[in-house]
Amino acid sequence: MAGSTFGQLFRVTTAGESHGPGYVAIVDGVPAGLELGVEDLLPDLARRRPGQSSITTQRDEADRPEILSGVFEGRTTGTPIAILIRNQDQRPRDYSELASKYRPGHADYTFDAKFGFRDHRGGGRSSARETTVRVAAGAIARKLLATVHGIRILGWVRQVGELVADVASPEEVTLEQVEATPVRCPDPAAAARMIELIELVRSERDSIGGIAEVVAVGVPAGWGEPVFDKLKAELAKALFSLPAVLGVEYGSGFGVARLRGSENNDPLRMADGRVVSPSNRHGGMLGGISSGMPIVLRCAVKPTSSLPREQPTVTRAGEETTIATRGRHDPCLLPRFVPMAEAMVALVLADHSLRHRASRIRDLG
Amino acid sequence: MAGSTFGQLFRVTTAGESHGPGYVAIVDGVPAGLELGVEDLLPDLARRRPGQSSITTQRDEADRPEILSGVFEGRTTGTPIAILIRNQDQRPRDYSELASKYRPGHADYTFDAKFGFRDHRGGGRSSARETTVRVAAGAIARKLLATVHGIRILGWVRQVGELVADVASPEEVTLEQVEATPVRCPDPAAAARMIELIELVRSERDSIGGIAEVVAVGVPAGWGEPVFDKLKAELAKALFSLPAVLGVEYGSGFGVARLRGSENNDPLRMADGRVVSPSNRHGGMLGGISSGMPIVLRCAVKPTSSLPREQPTVTRAGEETTIATRGRHDPCLLPRFVPMAEAMVALVLADHSLRHRASRIRDLG
Amino acid sequence: MAGSTFGQLFRVTTAGESHGPGYVAIVDGVPAGLELGVEDLLPDLARRRPGQSSITTQRDEADRPEILSGVFEGRTTGTPIAILIRNQDQRPRDYSELASKYRPGHADYTFDAKFGFRDHRGGGRSSARETTVRVAAGAIARKLLATVHGIRILGWVRQVGELVADVASPEEVTLEQVEATPVRCPDPAAAARMIELIELVRSERDSIGGIAEVVAVGVPAGWGEPVFDKLKAELAKALFSLPAVLGVEYGSGFGVARLRGSENNDPLRMADGRVVSPSNRHGGMLGGISSGMPIVLRCAVKPTSSLPREQPTVTRAGEETTIATRGRHDPCLLPRFVPMAEAMVALVLADHSLRHRASRIRDLG
Amino acid sequence: MAGSTFGQLFRVTTAGESHGPGYVAIVDGVPAGLELGVEDLLPDLARRRPGQSSITTQRDEADRPEILSGVFEGRTTGTPIAILIRNQDQRPRDYSELASKYRPGHADYTFDAKFGFRDHRGGGRSSARETTVRVAAGAIARKLLATVHGIRILGWVRQVGELVADVASPEEVTLEQVEATPVRCPDPAAAARMIELIELVRSERDSIGGIAEVVAVGVPAGWGEPVFDKLKAELAKALFSLPAVLGVEYGSGFGVARLRGSENNDPLRMADGRVVSPSNRHGGMLGGISSGMPIVLRCAVKPTSSLPREQPTVTRAGEETTIATRGRHDPCLLPRFVPMAEAMVALVLADHSLRHRASRIRDLG
Repeated sequence: MAGSTFGQLFRVTTAGESHGPGYVAIVDGVPAGLELGVEDLLPDLARRRPGQSSITTQRDEADRPEILSGVFEGRTTGTPIAILIRNQDQRPRDYSELASKYRPGHADYTFDAKFGFRDHRGGGRSSARETTVRVAAGAIARKLLATVHGIRILGWVRQVGELVADVASPEEVTLEQVEATPVRCPDPAAAARMIELIELVRSERDSIGGIAEVVAVGVPAGWGEPVFDKLKAELAKALFSLPAVLGVEYGSGFGVARLRGSENNDPLRMADGRVVSPSNRHGGMLGGISSGMPIVLRCAVKPTSSLPREQPTVTRAGEETTIATRGRHDPCLLPRFVPMAEAMVALVLADHSLRHRASRIRDLG
Repeated sequence: MAGSTFGQLFRVTTAGESHGPGYVAIVDGVPAGLELGVEDLLPDLARRRPGQSSITTQRDEADRPEILSGVFEGRTTGTPIAILIRNQDQRPRDYSELASKYRPGHADYTFDAKFGFRDHRGGGRSSARETTVRVAAGAIARKLLATVHGIRILGWVRQVGELVADVASPEEVTLEQVEATPVRCPDPAAAARMIELIELVRSERDSIGGIAEVVAVGVPAGWGEPVFDKLKAELAKALFSLPAVLGVEYGSGFGVARLRGSENNDPLRMADGRVVSPSNRHGGMLGGISSGMPIVLRCAVKPTSSLPREQPTVTRAGEETTIATRGRHDPCLLPRFVPMAEAMVALVLADHSLRHRASRIRDLG
Repeated sequence: MAGSTFGQLFRVTTAGESHGPGYVAIVDGVPAGLELGVEDLLPDLARRRPGQSSITTQRDEADRPEILSGVFEGRTTGTPIAILIRNQDQRPRDYSELASKYRPGHADYTFDAKFGFRDHRGGGRSSARETTVRVAAGAIARKLLATVHGIRILGWVRQVGELVADVASPEEVTLEQVEATPVRCPDPAAAARMIELIELVRSERDSIGGIAEVVAVGVPAGWGEPVFDKLKAELAKALFSLPAVLGVEYGSGFGVARLRGSENNDPLRMADGRVVSPSNRHGGMLGGISSGMPIVLRCAVKPTSSLPREQPTVTRAGEETTIATRGRHDPCLLPRFVPMAEAMVALVLADHSLRHRASRIRDLG
Repeated sequence: MAGSTFGQLFRVTTAGESHGPGYVAIVDGVPAGLELGVEDLLPDLARRRPGQSSITTQRDEADRPEILSGVFEGRTTGTPIAILIRNQDQRPRDYSELASKYRPGHADYTFDAKFGFRDHRGGGRSSARETTVRVAAGAIARKLLATVHGIRILGWVRQVGELVADVASPEEVTLEQVEATPVRCPDPAAAARMIELIELVRSERDSIGGIAEVVAVGVPAGWGEPVFDKLKAELAKALFSLPAVLGVEYGSGFGVARLRGSENNDPLRMADGRVVSPSNRHGGMLGGISSGMPIVLRCAVKPTSSLPREQPTVTRAGEETTIATRGRHDPCLLPRFVPMAEAMVALVLADHSLRHRASRIRDLG
C-alpha cells in the first residue's frame, strides 16, 4: 500500500500501468522560480524510450509528456508539477495466456500473492515502463541540481556479460562519449564488442545481464543524514527500486572484502583550500554523508526475464506448463537502464539538497 | 535532519552518542499482545556487544537495556516501547586530537561539513555503537515475526579477505553453526582460517574487510510494495544504513552480470499445493515482492577505518598532518556486523508484515 | 514544499491550478478488489460542481473525471489510481489586475511571500477548485468504507448567518433530506430562509458565512491512534486543510466551555451486547479513538472573500489601492462545502481503517 | 500504529505511560549550534507540572528532565535530542477497579476496543502526563524560534464556564500578566472570579470546561504549505492531539458564521514598507500560509472527566455498574493546558520554519 511515493521534500508520486491509458507523476517540492518546460524532459525521455536502436525493444512509444500544473510563464511556481504521458503503442493482442500463466522471473506470481488480482497485460504496474515518468521527474531534479549547484549526473554501461569497459576516471566521462554508441558504453572498443554480444544473444532468443555505473560530480560535502537516511542508503533504495537490479555498490564496493584498512582508507589532504580525498575509494560518501568527491555507484542488472523460448512454469490454477513470452523485449536492459539510474540518483540528490538546508542554526533566518 | 526514524508502521527512532550518557530507541507500532521482556533483547545484544571474543574490540560494554514503556504485565500494549541503554565504559581520555584532526575513512570531516560542529568523542553520533539500540529493536521485530509467521532470520560471515566460506544451502544454516566460532562463519574450516587471518591483520596494526550473508526463511509470498517501496529496496536501504557497508546484493547479485536470461530465470513449479521456485537465483523476491522462497542477501563491509598506525590527513584548520587512531577497535567488523544486519532485516520485514495487511479488500473488515 | 500528499496508508496526492490544463489526484493504497468505475465518482463531483444552482457560482465546469490507472476490469488492483479532471470553462480574460494587486482575504499576498512568484490566474493553486480531485478521491474512500464496514458519511449546512437549522438527531439525517434544497440544509424551514438570505446577500454584492455539520455513522470502536495521530486530530487537520475553514469542533465542541464534568460525561451502558454511550456529547471519539457512536463534526466557514465591490488593498509594488473582484463567485460557500467536508472525513476514515488493522497480534497472521 | 511521531523536519517522538518507569521524547531535526541545556526546559515544565497551585491536581511530580543526547558542550549538534523524565509520585494503590471498569469520558473503553489490552494504571498511554515530554520538546522549539526569528508564543485562559476574560489586544499580553495568577488568565478581575468558580466546582466534586487562547507573534509571512499541510491545518492537528480538546478555531473562528464578507475581510495596507493587515480577523493565516500578522488560536477544553462521584458505566465483562474516580485530579484543566498548547504551537512553527526554507530557488545554494 501507498508505496508509490519517493522522497521527503522533493517528492515524486507515480501511477500508471503499461497497457492502461497512461502514466502520471506528481513532483512536489520543486522550489519556485526554476525555468522549466516540456523541452527539459525530452532528452532523458528519448534516451529511455523503447525503439531507439537495434539493440533495444521495438515497442514504439513517442513518450510525449504533458505538464499539467506547477509551471507558469516558463517557471516553476513551487506547487506540484503533474506530468502525463499517455500510452500509445498498445497493439491489440490476446492476453489470456498472461492471465493464466506466471512468467518466470517476472512479478506475475508475487503480484497475485499480494493482491489476489492483477492487470496482467504486459506487466501492468510492474512493467519497467513505469520508469518513464520517473525519468521525466528526474529531469526536473537534474535541472534543479545543475542550476543551483552545478551538479552533473552521468551513467553508462560498465559491463555486459563478461565484457568489462575500461573507464579510468569516472568523473571525466562525457555525455558525448556515452551517447556515441547505442550501448551507452564510453569505452569504444568494449562498446563494439558489447553490441556484438547483445546481437548474438538476441539471435539465440536469449538475454544478458550487466553492470551500470553512475557518477555525480559536484555534490557539496555535507549532504545526507547520519543514521537511517544516510545518502548511500537513500541512493541504494532508489536504485534497488528500479526493476531488474540485483545489487548496488559504491566506491570500493564488493571488492572491499579483499582489502585491508591500510589499502582502502583514503588519505585526506588540502587542495585549493578545500579538504579533498582524490583516491576516492570511499565513493564520495563517508558516514553516509557526501564528502565533496564524486559519488560513484554501480548496479548489477539482470538479463531480461522475458524470453522468446519455452520456459517451465505454472498456471494460476496450479498446473505445471511452459510459456514463451512473445512481444518486443530488450535482449539487454543496460542501455536503457542508464537514464533510469541517473534519474533515481538525481531524485535522491535533489531531495537531500533541500533536506540539507536545515542543518545549522547559523544558516537559518 | 530528522533522519533518525526508520519504518512506516513498525517504526524505530534512535538517539544517542558513543560517549554521551547513553542510547534510546523508541519502537512504535508493535501490535498489542506480544509477550515481551528484557530477556528477549539480551541474546542479540550479547552477540553485538564489544569485548565478546579475542577478535573483537576490547571496549567492555554490558549493554543492559531498560524497557521504559509499552510493555505491561509481560505483554506489549500497542503503544511505543522505549529502550534505554546507558554507556558505561567511557574511559577518561584526551579527545583533543580527535577534535582537531579528521580521521581518514570516518565521518569526522563530513559531519563538520554538514553541521559545522560535532561531538568528536569517539565518533559521536556516527559511531557504530548506535546500532546497539537498533539490535534491541530488531529483537522485538524478530520475536514478532517468529511468533506470528514462524519467520527465522540468520546471518553469518561469508568472506573475510580472500577467504570464502562454503555455504551450500543458506536456508539450512543453523544458529549453532554460526555461533560455534567467534568469527560467526558456519563453515568450520573457513572459520578457522578467518580467525587466523584476523589475528594476523591485527598484529600488523591493520584491518580487513569481508562479506556477510543474511537469510530470512518463512517469509510468505506477497510482502513488499510494487514501485518505490519494493522489499529489495527497503532491505537495501536498511543494510546500507549500517556503518561500513559498501555494497548489497541479493539472489544472483553482481554475478548476474555474466548470466544469460536462460541461465538466471528460476522455473516455477508446484510443491505441496504451493508455487515454488527452489533454484532461487531470484533471492526470494520478484518485482520487489517476496516469492515465498528464502530471502538471501549479502553485504560488503569495509575494513575498520581506525588503524593504530599513522595515516595522512588534515586538521580542521586545513593543515596536513597524520593521525594514528588509538583505542580499542575491531580488526574485522564482520563478526559483530552479523547481528546488526539481522536486526535491520527483521525491522524491514516486521514493517512490511504490517503494511501488507491492507492489500486486499477481501482481507479487510 | 511537498505538502500535497495526505494520509499514511490510504494516501492522496493532488496537483493542479484553477486556470491551468487541469487537476490530477493519485490515490495510493486502495486495497485490491473493490468494484470501481468513473460512475462512482460522479455523484459527489456533481454535488461539488459550480453552476449547480442559483445560489452557487455560475462558473460552468463539467468536471468529467478520467481514471488513468489502478482499475482493471471494473475492480481496483491495489496499485495507485490516477484521476484526471481537465479544466474547461476558462474564459479568456485579463488577469493583469490580479497579477499586480492582492485580493483581501485571499492567499495572493501570502503565496508571494512564500514563493516570490505565483500563478495569479483566479487563485492558482490556492483556488477551492483544487478540492474537485479531493472529492473524487473521497468518493473512492467512501465506497471502500461503505463496502467493507457499512459506514455512511453525510454532511449538511447547519447555519448561515444567524439562521440555525434544527437537526435533532444528526445520525438520522438522510441524503434525500440534505439534497432536497440547493442550500443542503435538512431542516426545510431553515433551508428556505437560508436561500432567501443568500439571495439577499448576493444582491447586496456581499457574501455570508456559516457552519457545516458532518456525521459518520457505523465507524467501529477502536480507530485512531493514542497520541499525535488521534482520530480527532487527523479529522481536524483534514477539515482545516479545506479553504475558508476557521474552526472545527466535535461533540460538545466550544459549548463545552460552559459545561461541568457531571453534565458533559456520557454514561456508558450496554445495548445488544455492545458498549454504547448514546448521549454522545463525546462526538464518537474518546482519547482520540472512535467509540462506536456516530462521529459528529462541525466546521466554521468564512464568507467568500471575493466581493464585487471595491475593497482597500495594496499592490505587489507596495502602493495602496482598491480592488473589486470580478467574475463568478458563491455568495455563500456552505452548500458546495458539504461534499468537500464529507470527502475529507472519508479520506481520514479510510486511512485509519487500514492503519487500525495492525493493532493487535491476535489479528495478524 | 506508529502514531507517536509528530512533524516532518523538526520531529518529536514520545513514549511512556503515567505509571510506568517514565517518559522519553526524541527530538530530531534541531539544527546544530543552538545553545541548549536542561535549564531551558525547566520553566515550561514547571508551568505544566501538577501540584503547582491549589487549583490544580496535587499529584506531585518533580519532572526533572535528563538530556541523553544531541547536546555537546552546551550546544545542539544537529543529532537527535533524547529527553528522559522518570515518574516519581506513583503511590502504591489498588488498580483492580480501573482494570475492570471503564471510566466515562476516558479512553479506557476505546483503548480496549483498539488493542484488546491496556495498561490500566491511571490512564496509561492516554494520560495527559504524556504531555510532559511534549512540553520539554516544545521548549526546544520555542528557543529555536526565539533565537532565529524572535518569535514569541504565549497562551492564557480565555474562558472558564461562563466567565470570559477581557483581552483586547492578544498580541500585547505578557507572560507576567499570565503568570500573575494560578489560573493563567491575564484579566485580573476575570482571573479572580475563575479561581472562585474552580474552587466551588471542586468543592462540589465536579469539574468545569473552558477556552484557552494562544498567540504567536513575529512569525514571518510565508510559512505553511498551500494544500494539505496548511499552517492552520497543522496547528489544528497539533492542538487536537492534546487530551480534552473538543474544538479549535483561529481569527474570527466560529463567530464568522454570522459575518458578511464585507465585515470579515481584512483590508491590506502598508506599514514600514511591509504589507500589514492589522484588523487581523484572519488570525495571521491566509490560504493556510502565515501573513506576518499575529497567529491567534483558541481551543475548547472539556471539564476533567475524572470525578469523585459515582457515575454510571459498564465493566469489561459487560455489566452495568458505577465508578467514582479516586485520586488527584484538576477540577479545571485550563491553567495547566496553557503550556501544553504553547508547546504544540511551537513544535508546528519550528517544523514549518525548516520546511519553509526550500520554497524558492533563489534562496538555495
